[in-house]
Amino acid sequence: MEKIQRETLDSLFHPENVAVVGASANPGKLGHMCISSVTSGGFQGKIFTVNPSSAGGHIMGAPCYAAIDDLPEAVQLFIFAIPHNRIEDALIAAARKGAKGAVVFAGGFKETGAEGEDLQNRIRYVADTHGIKIIGPNCAGTLNPHHGLNATFIFPGFKFKKGGVAVVSQSGGTSGAILNSMIDSNVGLSKLVSIGNRVNLDFAEMIDYLGDDPATRVICLFIEGIDAARNFFETAKKVSRKKPILAYQAGFAASSKVLALSHTGSMSESEDVYRSALAQAGVLLLNDIEEMVDTAKGLSMCEPIEGSGAAILTHSAGPAIIISDTVESGGGRVADFSTENKRLLLEFIPRFSNPINPLDMFAHAHLDTTLYLKSLDVALSQPDIHIACACYIPNMGEEYRFPAREYADIAHKHHKPAILAYQAGFAASSKVLALS
Amino acid sequence: MEKIQRETLDSLFHPENVAVVGASANPGKLGHMCISSVTSGGFQGKIFTVNPSSAGGHIMGAPCYAAIDDLPEAVQLFIFAIPHNRIEDALIAAARKGAKGAVVFAGGFKETGAEGEDLQNRIRYVADTHGIKIIGPNCAGTLNPHHGLNATFIFPGFKFKKGGVAVVSQSGGTSGAILNSMIDSNVGLSKLVSIGNRVNLDFAEMIDYLGDDPATRVICLFIEGIDAARNFFETAKKVSRKKPILAYQAGFAASSKVLALSHTGSMSESEDVYRSALAQAGVLLLNDIEEMVDTAKGLSMCEPIEGSGAAILTHSAGPAIIISDTVESGGGRVADFSTENKRLLLEFIPRFSNPINPLDMFAHAHLDTTLYLKSLDVALSQPDIHIACACYIPNMGEEYRFPAREYADIAHKHHKPAILAYQAGFAASSKVLALS
Repeated sequence: MEKIQRETLDSLFHPENVAVVGASANPGKLGHMCISSVTSGGFQGKIFTVNPSSAGGHIMGAPCYAAIDDLPEAVQLFIFAIPHNRIEDALIAAARKGAKGAVVFAGGFKETGAEGEDLQNRIRYVADTHGIKIIGPNCAGTLNPHHGLNATFIFPGFKFKKGGVAVVSQSGGTSGAILNSMIDSNVGLSKLVSIGNRVNLDFAEMIDYLGDDPATRVICLFIEGIDAARNFFETAKKVSRKKPILAYQAGFAASSKVLALSHTGSMSESEDVYRSALAQAGVLLLNDIEEMVDTAKGLSMCEPIEGSGAAILTHSAGPAIIISDTVESGGGRVADFSTENKRLLLEFIPRFSNPINPLDMFAHAHLDTTLYLKSLDVALSQPDIHIACACYIPNMGEEYRFPAREYADIAHKHHKPAILAYQAGFAASSKVLALS
Repeated sequence: MEKIQRETLDSLFHPENVAVVGASANPGKLGHMCISSVTSGGFQGKIFTVNPSSAGGHIMGAPCYAAIDDLPEAVQLFIFAIPHNRIEDALIAAARKGAKGAVVFAGGFKETGAEGEDLQNRIRYVADTHGIKIIGPNCAGTLNPHHGLNATFIFPGFKFKKGGVAVVSQSGGTSGAILNSMIDSNVGLSKLVSIGNRVNLDFAEMIDYLGDDPATRVICLFIEGIDAARNFFETAKKVSRKKPILAYQAGFAASSKVLALSHTGSMSESEDVYRSALAQAGVLLLNDIEEMVDTAKGLSMCEPIEGSGAAILTHSAGPAIIISDTVESGGGRVADFSTENKRLLLEFIPRFSNPINPLDMFAHAHLDTTLYLKSLDVALSQPDIHIACACYIPNMGEEYRFPAREYADIAHKHHKPAILAYQAGFAASSKVLALS
């Protein structure tokens, strides 16, 4: 990525100051949800608002001006909470005020037909002429919790957990669904980019930028269709060597194609073509949002995996069988324990328990969770075992008593990742938390 | 199903009284978790316990006897929280006390090798001789919330929501994972049967019984491997004509096969063979537990669907595209709106919105949710549209304001099912509930 483009994107995600054009003091209005989001993210720079009807006053603590030209200083990021037909003039004014980036929520562009496409092209022209990068239009905006930036309208008043997972979503609504799932799973966010109609920021630019972003460890994509396919696949191939790229692709159905076209103006190809192209580019295609979020969580928290050998530790066979299927269907290998390790395991596993992988230590391991620690230590000592996964199903209302800290310590000692599948539902977990 | 077998199973799921053999007053013991479960389910009949060390007293309010032979009356359901090597004698004593059904939690049978298999055969002989049906061994037990029966050890103190979804799971651990997911999704349970080693109760008998069970509207199976395949598929084919059978099948991986064999003693066939056999038997195979639970929730709540035409209503295109994919991949059809209905839709849908299916009414429908009601009424009026699905993504912290009651009323008026995909995460939903 060229240095000047990277600097522009840095201004978009780490702006010194922001202006919300169309900010409103009236709850229920988009301009209110937006300024609520911006002011609640923990942003440390100056926040300005633009709205003639509140000029001279403040909206949610941010000083308000009648027009963009009245702003008292140059502003790096403009967030436009105004209708589509006012965007072009506003963008020209923002350029005069030194804008580097713009977020455009409004629909009414390419997705609506020829007239909207004309308007979108005019906006692109303004942006490109002045070196402004646009997120949107027809999108939910962007988030960078590491910089306290919440330039959306869908999460007013919510402070996201900082983390290593970046999300690039074509759909604003699906952005919300993915982030809801991340909140449930306590997954930290590096950046959200709801790219919408992609005026001059597409998947390829975002993947390239996030590939070099130190805060991002895993990149998640929600794709409805790809326009500049060659650029996308070449960039993905390059970046997937550095960090994992996960994707959930929708829009394969005939009816989806019509909607995807009228939505952000792109056409998806046949499922098979996409699947193989994504695989060749090193992109891991997941089956649904929850699976993508779970995978991202694991990959963002673990050390890199140095091989395909897995050990599975359990107190209940059924869930271990599910994990075995998953390991093997993803190209992993449930490795045999060595003769020496079988001997070591037989020293402490319960009677009737077989020293094979997956290792089922029955209800004994539920009552005595140190069996997990001992067996993890044995399993990870084996050179051809590169990752371990323990599964544990708490009884309803049980106090949290899996020795997660010690489990992680053993994994760190071996410099290998270890996963814990703690199979409580959300409600059950909450009960556990409430009890403990 | 023969009358006598049905009556025996009725005693198992609707017993007049129960005895917990091995009940314990010591927290942490299986016998304590079991009696805690039994006494917290709301069971209206008498509960007895058997344990020499508490004889003459009570355990969690239930009178305790030194031996099964000391019980003061005939008992229909015996729950054995004792080790495997004491089951045979206990079962013989239970037969003398009129037992109709038994739950055996202990492992140590067929799954451990030849010796255990001998023991399991002896237990089968005792049970069959005395007309006793056994759930297990090597299982998590059974639940029937409609009868206040919680004969498990994994949900002590928890009262399940009554409902129409039955779960038959080979794995006790996976039973827990499925029920946790049902609790999260607020899905009511008709019966849980953790069948374990299947001494004389297998999938086929349970499917047959649940097919005629008035409390059960949908049957969910977790399968690791099927032994009596012909019986299973013939029964499933018969029952799936009456009510939906859903399945999640694990154990396809090479390593899973070894574990499944050592677990409940069955071997799974190749994935393709199973998939086509299940499809022919009318069993819907799902990809994971959450998908099975979501599908069961929908099917247990909705009127039967009379055809394959679907309408999709949305304020955000991305999620609607996901739903379109799902409809079409399952053999459904996203039907075109009729010319007359397009005219009706154009009277109220927002400017730029296209009167096509999926119907995207943009953020306007988020702000004015009556657009969902108007468009549902139009869509369901069309004879070739048999089901509608609305998706709605609340903003973080938004008060619950989707008009679900009115939405359901319109569906009832048309005698067609309508689904609402309310795409908040659990945490987000909780926040909404807390606010409202």
